[in-house]
Amino acid sequence: MTIDFRFAVNVTPKPGILDPQGRAVEGLLSHLGIEGVSSVRIGRRVELTVAAADEDTARSTAARLAAEVLSNPLIEAFGLELIGATSSTTSPAATGDGR
Amino acid sequence: MTIDFRFAVNVTPKPGILDPQGRAVEGLLSHLGIEGVSSVRIGRRVELTVAAADEDTARSTAARLAAEVLSNPLIEAFGLELIGATSSTTSPAATGDGR
Repeated sequence: MTIDFRFAVNVTPKPGILDPQGRAVEGLLSHLGIEGVSSVRIGRRVELTVAAADEDTARSTAARLAAEVLSNPLIEAFGLELIGATSSTTSPAATGDGR
Repeated sequence: MTIDFRFAVNVTPKPGILDPQGRAVEGLLSHLGIEGVSSVRIGRRVELTVAAADEDTARSTAARLAAEVLSNPLIEAFGLELIGATSSTTSPAATGDGR
């Protein structure tokens, strides 16, 4: 039996890295009459489900995916956030274990 | 005196909305030998600072920005997350570069 762990991977530009999208949003604010907003930084949020026997295994799979696929370590940092867990009695599809 | 509230706005595709980027990531996984990952959904994470007298005022400013600028309400949902608060005695600089 495996447990389905739902993670969020929050990817943000590292401090000091230019963020042109964030600057563009700041430029819009005065036109909209929204005041007092600063330091806008735009990143990605990826939510995904990892089927694993325990949380540590699931977390290391999610961290590997975050580091190798979802972020560029030169300019971005990521954080992992566990947002849910549900036990599943069916075996995960497409793992092809064959036993 | 105002308080600087730091919020994260998490924008995710609504359930049922196609997410081609998420599908592309899922397609990569078998090549990388990462197994057991499913339901990948890719959204945005925007972090911003709102200077306001109290948390309710700051939260409503952040919510307005999230709904009008940072998300498309037809296909995306957003959540607000308070990630920090610091009282500031100086007025907020328009070009502050974050933490």
